[in-house]
Amino acid sequence: MSGAGNFKNCRSVMVTGATRGLGLQIVHSLATGDFSPGKIIATARNPSGATAQELQKLAQNHPNVHIVPLDVLSQESIEKAAEEVAHLVQEEGLNCLINNAGINVVADFQTVTAEMMIENFHTNSVAPLMITKAFLPLLKRAASRAGTGRSMGIHRAAIINMTSLLGSVELYWGERANSFKWYPYRTSKSALNMVSRCMAVDLEPDRILCMALHPGWVRTDMGGPEAPLSREESVDSILSVIGELTEKDHGSFLHYTGEPLPW
Amino acid sequence: MSGAGNFKNCRSVMVTGATRGLGLQIVHSLATGDFSPGKIIATARNPSGATAQELQKLAQNHPNVHIVPLDVLSQESIEKAAEEVAHLVQEEGLNCLINNAGINVVADFQTVTAEMMIENFHTNSVAPLMITKAFLPLLKRAASRAGTGRSMGIHRAAIINMTSLLGSVELYWGERANSFKWYPYRTSKSALNMVSRCMAVDLEPDRILCMALHPGWVRTDMGGPEAPLSREESVDSILSVIGELTEKDHGSFLHYTGEPLPW
Repeated sequence: MSGAGNFKNCRSVMVTGATRGLGLQIVHSLATGDFSPGKIIATARNPSGATAQELQKLAQNHPNVHIVPLDVLSQESIEKAAEEVAHLVQEEGLNCLINNAGINVVADFQTVTAEMMIENFHTNSVAPLMITKAFLPLLKRAASRAGTGRSMGIHRAAIINMTSLLGSVELYWGERANSFKWYPYRTSKSALNMVSRCMAVDLEPDRILCMALHPGWVRTDMGGPEAPLSREESVDSILSVIGELTEKDHGSFLHYTGEPLPW
Repeated sequence: MSGAGNFKNCRSVMVTGATRGLGLQIVHSLATGDFSPGKIIATARNPSGATAQELQKLAQNHPNVHIVPLDVLSQESIEKAAEEVAHLVQEEGLNCLINNAGINVVADFQTVTAEMMIENFHTNSVAPLMITKAFLPLLKRAASRAGTGRSMGIHRAAIINMTSLLGSVELYWGERANSFKWYPYRTSKSALNMVSRCMAVDLEPDRILCMALHPGWVRTDMGGPEAPLSREESVDSILSVIGELTEKDHGSFLHYTGEPLPW
């Protein structure tokens, strides 16, 4: 069974950065899976652009895929997208928000500038926070409709922050310290891990699950051709993990195989 | 013996953000200690301003205290300060750089904005990186003059990044999760911890020690009046820890008592 099978209790999913890479693959796998969520909201900075053609095609073939414009760096755009999604999901709210949009501003110690650090931080660490804030009313609505039980998961409401093993400070040492000397990217993912933990603390009273997930090293535009995982392999595993998240995973940092990672 | 006694093998120290709080106390303790380093470089955004009066008085009474203007957010200012310090330390280079300047942009989940996140990140996480880059030639010079031994410490060259226990993602959970819900500050310190680790990886070939230090919760303008530690207590302990750093502490995250902290 594919990972998407785990989404049978999830009525709505939103994926940011869905025009390519993992974001597009997540939308594709959910749309074509055995149990497709009632609403799959795929956001794109420029939905009518040439880079969004594959996503547009998916939406044409699958009426439950809805494309919503979202520039994650613009507060105005975030708020407008939240209004649009509110109309789409209505009183059911939003079950699962996947903060997937991200960039890699490649720079090492010699070449890094303050501007590069801030650019990567804004997109990878700040945007997921600002998006979660704006969509929180929809997540709360879904959480409250799941009944008085205390269980957590995508049947209620969950926020998945796509982070990276490269954001683990602990793992960046010894044998692992000889590659990917990417200051802006690594720093932005460490920062996202803290943002994810902070949000988990604050959203626990609403029983909204929040966690950080490493998707593996995947053959995308970002991961490059030498990565060991195909997009399908990564996303199949990711969707399995997301679908099986429970309260024990709240505030966690997990590998795409489901194992916990050190901060 | 005071913590400053450990600095007898350190000819030059630079402290950023030295007009008040811990930065001012570090300069004071070093200047008035039994073994005062030959050159104590204290940086201030506005050395002639009213807030710098205490530092100015220290410099008048202690000729080894040199005040250098430095706006940590300005690349031009950073480079100008590096030139000025190069003239001060000459061929001896710089033994110890204490990246102490920092701010706390207080905001919780409700009030935080993208601008607040970026402001705190720039000062607390990016500036220490850009300052270290600019001062690296002076640190390398000091390191190379310490001979062919492989030992690390302030007798050779060291970078101390003043971080916070609040930047530990691991510790922000359970009982500790009920206070200080400061998104910009916590995130900036997690990011600084990764920056510190990245720099430790890259500066190891030059035998330049780099680590992150939690100064404790101190009664400063930032720490507030309820903090348990006086400035003197914190700095005495900090200087002891810095003075005793060796290669085993390279890349570490330490409590002001010297114990390792989880990331």
